[in-house]
Amino acid sequence: MSARWQELVADKKLRQTASIPKIWLITSPPDSVLDVRKVPDECGLLTPKEVVITNTIEVQTILANLATGKWTSLEVTLAFYKRAIIAQQLASLVNCLTEIFVERALARAKELDEQLKATGKLAGPLHGLPISLKDQLSMKGLETTMGYVSWIGKYAERDSVLVRILYEAGAVPFVRTNVPQTLMWSETYNEVFGRTLNPANRKLTSGGSSGGEGALMGMKGSPLGVGSDIGGSIRIPAGYNGLYGLRPSYGRLPYAGATNSLEGQDSIPSVLGPLSNSMSGIKIFMQAVSASKPWLKDSLARYAPWDASQYTLAEHGGGKKLCFAIMWNDGQTIPHPPVIRALEMTKNAVLAAGHKVVDWQPYKHKEICGAVYSIWTAGSKEDYASVADITGEPVLNTMEIEAEHGSAPNSFLPHQENVTAHKLWQTQKARTAWRQEYLEHWNETGRVTGTGRPVDAVISPISPYGGAPPHGKSRNVDYTAVWNGLDYSACVFPTTRVHATLDMKKSPHQFLNERDKTHYSMWDPQTFWNAPVSLQLVGRCQEEEAVIAMTEIVDAALKKQQVSKL
Amino acid sequence: MSARWQELVADKKLRQTASIPKIWLITSPPDSVLDVRKVPDECGLLTPKEVVITNTIEVQTILANLATGKWTSLEVTLAFYKRAIIAQQLASLVNCLTEIFVERALARAKELDEQLKATGKLAGPLHGLPISLKDQLSMKGLETTMGYVSWIGKYAERDSVLVRILYEAGAVPFVRTNVPQTLMWSETYNEVFGRTLNPANRKLTSGGSSGGEGALMGMKGSPLGVGSDIGGSIRIPAGYNGLYGLRPSYGRLPYAGATNSLEGQDSIPSVLGPLSNSMSGIKIFMQAVSASKPWLKDSLARYAPWDASQYTLAEHGGGKKLCFAIMWNDGQTIPHPPVIRALEMTKNAVLAAGHKVVDWQPYKHKEICGAVYSIWTAGSKEDYASVADITGEPVLNTMEIEAEHGSAPNSFLPHQENVTAHKLWQTQKARTAWRQEYLEHWNETGRVTGTGRPVDAVISPISPYGGAPPHGKSRNVDYTAVWNGLDYSACVFPTTRVHATLDMKKSPHQFLNERDKTHYSMWDPQTFWNAPVSLQLVGRCQEEEAVIAMTEIVDAALKKQQVSKL
Repeated sequence: MSARWQELVADKKLRQTASIPKIWLITSPPDSVLDVRKVPDECGLLTPKEVVITNTIEVQTILANLATGKWTSLEVTLAFYKRAIIAQQLASLVNCLTEIFVERALARAKELDEQLKATGKLAGPLHGLPISLKDQLSMKGLETTMGYVSWIGKYAERDSVLVRILYEAGAVPFVRTNVPQTLMWSETYNEVFGRTLNPANRKLTSGGSSGGEGALMGMKGSPLGVGSDIGGSIRIPAGYNGLYGLRPSYGRLPYAGATNSLEGQDSIPSVLGPLSNSMSGIKIFMQAVSASKPWLKDSLARYAPWDASQYTLAEHGGGKKLCFAIMWNDGQTIPHPPVIRALEMTKNAVLAAGHKVVDWQPYKHKEICGAVYSIWTAGSKEDYASVADITGEPVLNTMEIEAEHGSAPNSFLPHQENVTAHKLWQTQKARTAWRQEYLEHWNETGRVTGTGRPVDAVISPISPYGGAPPHGKSRNVDYTAVWNGLDYSACVFPTTRVHATLDMKKSPHQFLNERDKTHYSMWDPQTFWNAPVSLQLVGRCQEEEAVIAMTEIVDAALKKQQVSKL
Repeated sequence: MSARWQELVADKKLRQTASIPKIWLITSPPDSVLDVRKVPDECGLLTPKEVVITNTIEVQTILANLATGKWTSLEVTLAFYKRAIIAQQLASLVNCLTEIFVERALARAKELDEQLKATGKLAGPLHGLPISLKDQLSMKGLETTMGYVSWIGKYAERDSVLVRILYEAGAVPFVRTNVPQTLMWSETYNEVFGRTLNPANRKLTSGGSSGGEGALMGMKGSPLGVGSDIGGSIRIPAGYNGLYGLRPSYGRLPYAGATNSLEGQDSIPSVLGPLSNSMSGIKIFMQAVSASKPWLKDSLARYAPWDASQYTLAEHGGGKKLCFAIMWNDGQTIPHPPVIRALEMTKNAVLAAGHKVVDWQPYKHKEICGAVYSIWTAGSKEDYASVADITGEPVLNTMEIEAEHGSAPNSFLPHQENVTAHKLWQTQKARTAWRQEYLEHWNETGRVTGTGRPVDAVISPISPYGGAPPHGKSRNVDYTAVWNGLDYSACVFPTTRVHATLDMKKSPHQFLNERDKTHYSMWDPQTFWNAPVSLQLVGRCQEEEAVIAMTEIVDAALKKQQVSKL
C-alpha cells in the first residue's frame, strides 16, 4: 500500500482548514468538557443577535422573519455559518463538516436579500434559509468525497437534483457534513475527515451515516439539513442528537445526481430526508420539495404532490382519537432503561391527550432484518473495493477508536462472497412475502383498536441503546432497518435525556438470546451520561404526510405533559 | 424424462373439457377459415339478446344497463361465458382459456342480481360485470398453472389481492386465460393448454404473454380483462388483437397473491393492467381499483388515489393543444409498412384535431433494452428450472409450431450463467443512469414544442411487425420493453388493419443492422392478412390518468378522421 492516499488526505485537510475564516476560530474547551452544546452561545464569537437567530429552532419562525425582512438571509446564513464553524473547529469540537464554502453561501444569501428588496417577492418557500447537506449531495464545483480518500478531487459538474430544487425554492445550501466511509455504518468516521462526536457528550458517537448532520444540528449549527437513510442513517443520528428526522418511503425525495454507496442495488433503495430541531422544519421541507414536482426531474421520484388530505389525517379519523401501538421491544433485543422510560412517558402523554394505546406485536423482525442485511451485502464487498482500490485506502471494518491508531480490532463489517443473482432474488422474494404478511398483520389490528381502523401508527425505539453509545459501539440497527425493509415512513422525535437515577440498571431479565445478554451488560447510565433519548413514529408505506401530522400530535402531547409536570 | 408430466397434462385437459357444458359446443369451422371473429354471432348458440350484449364494446354502457336492471348480471355473464366457450371449443377455435368455472360465475352473478333487487344498491363500481383474468391471478379453490405442467394441481388457498378487490367492486371473475410457459414470451404456447391463436387470422399469433386475454377479447368473449406486462405482455396482445391495453407504471395495481415468473427480481417489476375493446373499459377499471385503496392491501402498491386533476390534463394545458411526438422507429428496426401508415394516419388525425406533432428522437433504446434483457436473464435459467424440474417438463426454448411436434428448432430463449449480484447491480446502475438521461432528454423537448411544455406524450409502434406475426415469429419486443425499462405509462390503441395494396412491400432502405435487414425481408401483406395494426401512447412515469385521457383524445381524433373519410 503506497503512502499516496495519506498524502491526498493531508492535502484535503489543509484545504479544509484554509476554507475556515481565521477570525472564526475559538479556543476549544478541553477534552474533559463532554457537553459542548453551550460553547457557541458562550464563546463570544456570535453577536447577541446571532445567538438569538441560531437559537430559533422553529424553522417557520426563521422563514417568517426572513420574509418580513426582520432578518436578512445574509445575517441568518452568517449566524449559522459561524455556529457551524464553531462546531467544526481546528481542534475538532465535534468535527461535523466536510465542504466549507463561506463566500459562495454568503454571496447567495446577499443575492436573495437584494432580490427581495428589489422585487418584494420571495424567491420560494425556503427563501433565505441556510440548509446543510450530507456529503452525498453533489454541488457544482465542489468535491464529493463521501468519506472515501479515493474521491478526493472528484469535483461535481452539476448540482444534484435536490440541490437544484433547494436553490429554486430560495434556500442557501451552506455546508456539507460528514459521513462514515461506505455510508453503511451507524457512526461517522472516515480516513479523510476523521470522526464526528456527539455534542451532548463527546465520548459518545453522533450516530451515522448522517452523523455530521446530527452533530451539527445538535450544536444548532444549522436550522435544517438533509440526510439519507438505507437502514437508519437519518433516524439514528437524529435520535442520538435529540432531533426530529424523517425517513420518507422510497422515492419521495429526488436522489438523482447525489453520490451513493451500493449503486444498482434496487431492492432497498436509500432515501433522502430532512433533519431539524423542529417539526416545522420537517414539514416545511417536505412541502417545499413536493411543490417542486420532483418526479419531473428525477426518474425514480414518486409522483406525490403534497397531500393535504393525508396531512389532515382523513384516513385516521381526522386525528381526533388515534390508536397508537407501542413496540416495547422487537423480540430480539430489550432496549436499555431510558428507552423503556421514554416509551412509558409517550404512552402516558398520548393517553392524557385522549388517544388510545395498544401494544405492538413485532412480526418476523429477525427475518426481515436478516433479509435486509443479506441484500445489502450481496455485492457490497466488490462495491467498496471498487472505490477504495483506486488509492489503496483501507476499507474500514470497524468504527472503534483504536482503528484510528492503526490497531485492528475484530471486524464487524459483514459481507458475503459469490452471491449469484438468482440467490439474491430468492432473498428478495422472501422479503417481499414478509412485507405482505406484515401489512396484513397491521390490518388485523383493526380488531383490537376499537377505532374501526387498524392502529394509526407504531411508536418504536430507534435503537436498543439507551442513547448514543460510546464510539465504536453502535452496532445494532435492527430497530431502524426493519422499517427500511418494509418501506414504512417514520419520523424520529426527542423525549428525554439519560438520567443517573431514573435509568439505573435493572435486574437481568430472561435474555432473548446471546446478543440480548451482551446488550444488557453494556448498560451503565454514567457511560451514556447526558445522551438524548428518542423514539420514532412509524406509519404505513408512503404515509409521509400522516406521519408528520401524527408526530406533531405526539410531540405536542409530550411537551404538554412536561409543562404540566413543571 | 418420465412420462409422468404428459399424464398430468392429459388429466388436466380432460378436466378442462369436462368443465365445458356440452350444450355449448358448436361445430368449428375448418382450419382454412382464418378470421373466426364472426363465428359467435353466426353459429346460433347465442340468443339475439346475447349477440347484442356481447357486441356492446363500451363497458360503461354494459355497466349502465346492469345498474338500471335492463340487463341482469346473470344474462351478461351467461352471454359472455357462452361466447368465451365458443372461442375456446374442443377443436380449439382460438384456444384462449385455462380455468373454466361456469357454475361459480353464474352463481355469483345471480347473487348480485338478487342483492340489487333486494336493496336497490349496486355492489360497487363494477356491479355485475364479467371480467376475465390472466392465468396468474389466483382464485381460491382453482388451480394456477401459469403454463407450467409442474403447477397442475396447485390450488389457491386465497384470492389474489386484485381478485378480492374485483369481488368487492361487484365484478364477476368468470374465466382465466392462457399464457406461455415462463411468461417471458410475446406469444402464447405451453405444454398444458397448447397454443392460443389470433381470431383475426388463426395462422398468426395472439401475442403474449397475456395472449389468452388478447384472443378472448378479440372474439368479444369478455368485456374487460386483466393482463400483466414486464416487457410488453399486455401491449403486444392488445396490439395484435386490435384492443386497448394499459401498462401502468410500477405498483399502480396490486400484484400480491398472484403467481409470477422471476420472483424476487425487484428492478423491473411486472405490472398488472387492463385490456378492453373500449377506452371506457380501461378507465373504469383503473378508477374502480384505485378507489379500493390497493396500497392498504398490497405492500408493493403505490399510494395513488384516482387523480382527477391528472385526468383533466392539468399539467398538459388542459388537453387543449397537445404536442405529440411521433416515434417513426427506434433506431434499431424499421417497422413494417402498416405501422408507418398507422403513424401517418394518427399524425394527420391529431393535427386535424388541432394538436401539434414533432418527431421523437429515440435515446439509447438499444442500451436500455440491453439492460432490461440482461436484468431478466441474470437468474432466469435457475428460476425456470426450479419449476420445470419438479415434473421434468421441458423448458421451452422456442414458440415455433414445429416444437409442438417434437422437433427442436434453434433456441431463442436467452439466458446468462453465473451472474453475480454485484454484476447485476452494475447493469441496474447503468440502467438507472439511462432512465435519468431519458427524463432529461424528454424535458429538453420543451425547446421545440412551442407549447411551453415538453412533449405531452410519445406515439410509438408497439412492435416493428406490421401486425401479429405468424406463430413462432414474434421475437422483437424492443418497442415495448424499452418503456418497461423506463417505467413509463403506456396505452395501446387500434388504428387500422393490414391492407394488401396500401401496405405493399417497399424498396429496401439503408438497413440499420443485420436484424433490421432480416426484419425487412419478413414482410409480406399476404402472410399478415387481416392483422390489426396498433400503436401505443407513451406518457411519463406514473402518468396513468394523463395517458388514459390523451389516448381518448387520439382515439377520438382517429375515429373522427375515419368517419370523415366515409
